[in-house]
Amino acid sequence: MPRFITELKRTHSCGELTRTDVGNEVVLFGWVNNRRDHGGAVFIDLRDRAGVTQVVFEHGVRPDVHDLAGQLRLEYCVGIRGKVVSRGENANPRLATGEIEVHATDLEIFNRCEPTPFLVEDKIDTSEEKRLQYRYLDLRRAPLQKTLMTRAKVNHLTRNYFTDSNFLELETPFMGKYTPGGARNFLVPSRLNAGKFYALAESPQLYKQLYMVAGFDRYFQIVRCFRDEDLRLDRQPEFTQIDVEMSFVEQNDVFEVIEGLIVKLWKEVLGVEIPRPFLRMPFDESMAKYGNDKPDLRFDLPHVVLTDVVAQHGGGGVPLLKQAIEAKGIVKGLRVPASASFSRTEIDKLEEFVKGMGAKGLARAKVAEGGEWTQSPFAKTITAELRQAINQAMGAKPGDLLLFQFGKEAVVHTVMANLRVHLAKRMGLIPEYGSGGQWRFLWVVDPPLFEYDEESKTWAAAHHAFTRPRDQDLQYLETDPGRVYCWRYDLVLNGFEIGGGSIRLHDPVVQARVFKAMGISDEEARSKFGFLLDALKMGAPPHGGIALGMDRLVMLLTGAESLRDVVAWPKTQKGTDLMTGAPGDVDAKQLRDLHVKSTVEPGK
Amino acid sequence: MPRFITELKRTHSCGELTRTDVGNEVVLFGWVNNRRDHGGAVFIDLRDRAGVTQVVFEHGVRPDVHDLAGQLRLEYCVGIRGKVVSRGENANPRLATGEIEVHATDLEIFNRCEPTPFLVEDKIDTSEEKRLQYRYLDLRRAPLQKTLMTRAKVNHLTRNYFTDSNFLELETPFMGKYTPGGARNFLVPSRLNAGKFYALAESPQLYKQLYMVAGFDRYFQIVRCFRDEDLRLDRQPEFTQIDVEMSFVEQNDVFEVIEGLIVKLWKEVLGVEIPRPFLRMPFDESMAKYGNDKPDLRFDLPHVVLTDVVAQHGGGGVPLLKQAIEAKGIVKGLRVPASASFSRTEIDKLEEFVKGMGAKGLARAKVAEGGEWTQSPFAKTITAELRQAINQAMGAKPGDLLLFQFGKEAVVHTVMANLRVHLAKRMGLIPEYGSGGQWRFLWVVDPPLFEYDEESKTWAAAHHAFTRPRDQDLQYLETDPGRVYCWRYDLVLNGFEIGGGSIRLHDPVVQARVFKAMGISDEEARSKFGFLLDALKMGAPPHGGIALGMDRLVMLLTGAESLRDVVAWPKTQKGTDLMTGAPGDVDAKQLRDLHVKSTVEPGK
Repeated sequence: MPRFITELKRTHSCGELTRTDVGNEVVLFGWVNNRRDHGGAVFIDLRDRAGVTQVVFEHGVRPDVHDLAGQLRLEYCVGIRGKVVSRGENANPRLATGEIEVHATDLEIFNRCEPTPFLVEDKIDTSEEKRLQYRYLDLRRAPLQKTLMTRAKVNHLTRNYFTDSNFLELETPFMGKYTPGGARNFLVPSRLNAGKFYALAESPQLYKQLYMVAGFDRYFQIVRCFRDEDLRLDRQPEFTQIDVEMSFVEQNDVFEVIEGLIVKLWKEVLGVEIPRPFLRMPFDESMAKYGNDKPDLRFDLPHVVLTDVVAQHGGGGVPLLKQAIEAKGIVKGLRVPASASFSRTEIDKLEEFVKGMGAKGLARAKVAEGGEWTQSPFAKTITAELRQAINQAMGAKPGDLLLFQFGKEAVVHTVMANLRVHLAKRMGLIPEYGSGGQWRFLWVVDPPLFEYDEESKTWAAAHHAFTRPRDQDLQYLETDPGRVYCWRYDLVLNGFEIGGGSIRLHDPVVQARVFKAMGISDEEARSKFGFLLDALKMGAPPHGGIALGMDRLVMLLTGAESLRDVVAWPKTQKGTDLMTGAPGDVDAKQLRDLHVKSTVEPGK
Repeated sequence: MPRFITELKRTHSCGELTRTDVGNEVVLFGWVNNRRDHGGAVFIDLRDRAGVTQVVFEHGVRPDVHDLAGQLRLEYCVGIRGKVVSRGENANPRLATGEIEVHATDLEIFNRCEPTPFLVEDKIDTSEEKRLQYRYLDLRRAPLQKTLMTRAKVNHLTRNYFTDSNFLELETPFMGKYTPGGARNFLVPSRLNAGKFYALAESPQLYKQLYMVAGFDRYFQIVRCFRDEDLRLDRQPEFTQIDVEMSFVEQNDVFEVIEGLIVKLWKEVLGVEIPRPFLRMPFDESMAKYGNDKPDLRFDLPHVVLTDVVAQHGGGGVPLLKQAIEAKGIVKGLRVPASASFSRTEIDKLEEFVKGMGAKGLARAKVAEGGEWTQSPFAKTITAELRQAINQAMGAKPGDLLLFQFGKEAVVHTVMANLRVHLAKRMGLIPEYGSGGQWRFLWVVDPPLFEYDEESKTWAAAHHAFTRPRDQDLQYLETDPGRVYCWRYDLVLNGFEIGGGSIRLHDPVVQARVFKAMGISDEEARSKFGFLLDALKMGAPPHGGIALGMDRLVMLLTGAESLRDVVAWPKTQKGTDLMTGAPGDVDAKQLRDLHVKSTVEPGK
C-alpha cells in the first residue's frame, strides 16, 4: 500500500482551497489535467470531481520529487503533499481555487495513463461512438460529471421530500408476469420452470396499487423500468422513474404533492422559484390549440380549429376543404405574425418539413391589406365569406402568414403540433434545446377514458384499464363510451411530458363495466388481471398516483442535449453497450438449461 | 368522488390520538379490524399502517350512520368523522390510542370486502402458500407492516448516511454483458440484435469500479441484483444490496465508513449502541476455530485443530485417525462442557444430525475423573499419551463431552461449523432465530487470494479476479500462489455474512500476473474483461469497496424468521410468484420476434 493512502490521508478536495488556506500543508489526490514544464518548475492542474488546483514542483526544493514530476503526463493519477501559497497578482479569477497554488513536497504516482483516445476536456468533437466506447474517460469531463452529480442530488432531494411527507419507499419485483397487449416487454426465460418466461417490469403499476390495497397508504420508489421499444433518440431500454401512489386521495392531492417536489427541486438545484399552483388545461383544449397533450407554453402560436367554419360555408369554393369535411376530417390553421416575415424559400422549406411528417402539403396564405389572400392555392376559388370568416377566426392582420392543414384528425394534429414547435425555433422564440430560462409547467387533465380503435372496431383504454371515470360520465359507459372522461393527468414542461398518472378505479363493479365496454370478457380479464380484480374486492381503498420520468426531468433541469447525457452508461439506438459489447453471445449449453434455442444460425 | 376525500380530509392517522385530543373533531380513514355490535352501539377498531383506534357508532346520535355502521364487516375500507372522547376507566393500556375512542357522526364505506381467505391478525397459522397467493392481505398484518416500514427506514437512513459522507448515489445498468464462468445469470434475448443476449446484472461490480476510474471518488447505490441460482430457503432470485466503492482508500477506510453505518442503523432502529471498532479475525483463524468464515460469536464452543497432535502420536493407536492423517486429512475436536449434560439419546441425535450433512459418524468421548474416556469408540485402543495430549489441547475437564471429526478438510470444517451452531441452540446459548439481544459484528480479513480447484488442477480466484494481493505476497504469485493473501474482507453478524468486499487491483501489471497465475490467457482475459483492463491503463485510482445484503441486514435487524418476511413480494423456492402466476406463458409470435424458440413442447 502506498504511503499516500495509509499515512498521508487526503485533507482537501481539488475544488476548495482558497486564500484562507495559505500556509497550510495539504494532501490532494486527483488526475493530471494539464501540465507545463517551465524549465525550473513543473506546473500541473490537479483535477478531481470537485474541481481543479494548480500544483507546482519547484526545482530546488526536493530534487527527487521534481524528477518524478517530470514523468507526469495527462490523466496520470497521483497524490501530492505540499504547502498552500498565494498566487498574488497571478490569481486566476475563472477558477474557484484560482487565488492559490500548492507547492508540492511529495508526489506519488498511483497509476500511469496511456495516451487517451480523446482529450478530457469540456468541449470535444469526438464521435459519440468513441465516447461511449471509452465512457469512463468521457465521464471524466466536467460537463458530464456535473450532470451526474446533479442527478444524484435530484435523487437525494426527491427521496427526502417524499420521506418527509410521510411516504414509504417500498420495493417491487423486476421479474414479473408477462401480460399480453401492454408495452413490449423484455422477457427472461425461467430455468426452474421449463417453457415459462418472466417479463421485466415496464413499471411497478400493479404492485404499487397492491401496496395501497395492503394499507401502506403512501408509497414512492425511484425505480428502474424496462421497455423493449424501437429506440428513438430520446429513449433508453432501461429508464428510471419516480413512482408514487397514495390512498384516500383525489387529483388535487396528487398535484399538491408533485408540485411541492418540483418547486423544491428547481429551487435547490437551480435557485429558481416556480410559482404554484401550476396551470391546468383540459385535454380537449390542448389538442385543439396545440395538437397534442404536451404543449410547449413558452410561446403562443396556437392552432385555430376551422372545421366548423369551413363546414358552415360548405367548403367555401375550395374542393380540397370540402372533401376533407365530407370525409369527417378536420381543418386547422396557424397564424404566423407579420413580424416573422418568412421568405418564399423559407415557406417552401416549411412545406418540406411537414411533408417529412406525412402531410400532403402546406396550404398557406399571405394576408394583404384588405384581407385578401396572396401566394395561396386557395386564393382563386375561395369565397370571400369563408376567407373573411377564417381571417376573423384566426385574428389575421395584414402581412400575417396563415398556414393550414386538413384531413385525418390524428395527422392534422401531429403535423400542426410539430410545425408549431418548428416555427418557434425558426422564429427564435425558444432555443434549439434547453429551457432558455423559461419553465412552463402544465397539468393536462380530463382526457377521455377510451380511444376508438378503427382497426379492431373496439374501444380501448386510452392509457390503462384501471383509470377512474368521472362519476357523472358513468351513465355513458354502455351507451356512448367516447363521452366518458376520466381522472387521468399528465405533467408537462416546455413541450415534454415529464409525468403521468391517474386516480385509479377501486370499485370492482365499475371495473367490470369498464372491461365490458372494452369488449374484454370476464375470462380474459381474469387471466390478465385476476389477482388485481380479487384485490379490489378485498376492501381496496380509493387511490391514485403518478410516475415522473427521472431521466427526462434531469435532462430538462440540466439543459442536457439528450437523455444519453444524463445516463452514465447508456445504450445506443440499437440497444448495444459500446463499452462492454452487450448484448453478446451465449453458449448453447446455457440456453439448453433455460429451455430455449436461438433461431439464428451460429456464425451469422 | 366521495365527500370524504374531497371535503373531509383526513386529520389524523389511526395511531396517534391520545387524551390531549379529547373534545376535538377528527377524520380517520382505515380498515375495520374488529367489530362488535352491542345492541345499542356498534364498536369497531379502525386500522391503518400507524395503528388502531376504537370508533363507536351510538344508536341515538345519527340513525342513518348507525344503520350504515350495522353493515360494516371485517376489512371494509371506510372513512369516519367524529369526536374524540375519553375512555376513562375503560382505557386500554396495551394500545397507543387506548385512552380514547371516537364517537362517529359520519361514515363512508369506500369499499366492501368479501370474506377473506384468512384473518388479518398478528399470528396466523395459514399456509405460506395461501399467504403468498393473497399477499396484499398478508401484508395488512401488523408484523409484516412493521418489518417493511423498518426496511423503508433502513433504506432512508442508509442513503442519508452515505450522502452526508460525501458519497454520490449513481445508477448502473441492469441489462449488461454476459460473462461466462461467473454466477449463473438470468438472460434476456435481444430483439434488435438477433441471436444476442443481455445478462441481468448479478452486481454492479464492474460499473462501480469504472465509476472510480471516471473520477467519481465515492459511489454508493441501493440496488437490485439478480442471480439464477437454485433457491434455498434464504435466497431470492432478485435481491437488494447496499453497494459501495471508494477511491484512494485502504481497508481501514472502508471499515470506518461501514461501521459508522451499522452503528447508526442499530442506534436509530433499535436504540442499541454497538461498540466500535468491530472485532477483526484472520480468515485462517476463523476456519480453524469455527470451521467457516462467518462465525457466530454470541457463544464460544470453539473447534480445536488436533491434526498435528494426532500426527505427532502417529495416530495414537486409533486406525481411523491414522488413516485420516495419512490421507492428508484434518482432525478437529469440540469440547461440550459437563454442564450441558447431554444424554446418550441426545448424543445419538447429534450423530444423526452430522450424518445428514455428509459426516460418516460422530466420534465422541466422555471425560472421566482421571481424564479417562468412556462411551468412546477410541477408548479401547487410544494410547494414554494421545488421550492426554488431546485432553490438554481441548482443556477437557471431568464430565465434559468431546466430539470429533476427521477426514477431508472441507467436510470436517463444514460439519463441525454446523454442529457448533446446532449445539448452541440445543444448549440454549442462542435462540432458534433472532439475535436474542446480542449483536456480535466481526470483520473476517486476510483470506488467501486463490483456491486450488482439484478438478481442473488450477488456481481460481477465491472471490474475484480483481482483488488486490498483499504487497509482501506478490513474490509468490508465480511460485506458490497458495501463499498469496489478499485485501478481501467479509462483515459477519451472529453467524451470517452480511457483506463482503475488497481493495481492488488497480495496477495493470499485477493484474496480468494474477491472470497468468490463474491460467487465464491474455486472449481470454481480453474477451471477458477487455474494457476493464483498458480502463486500468487509463489512470485508474487505487480503490476498494463492499456490498452489504439489504435483505439479510433487515432480516437480522427485525428478527424476522426468513428473508421472505422482509421482501414484500417474494418468490417461492421454484422462483414462482404465487399471486401473479409469474413466470408464465408467452405466445410464439413474441418469441419469434426475440429470435428464440422454446424447447418445451406446447401443452406440456
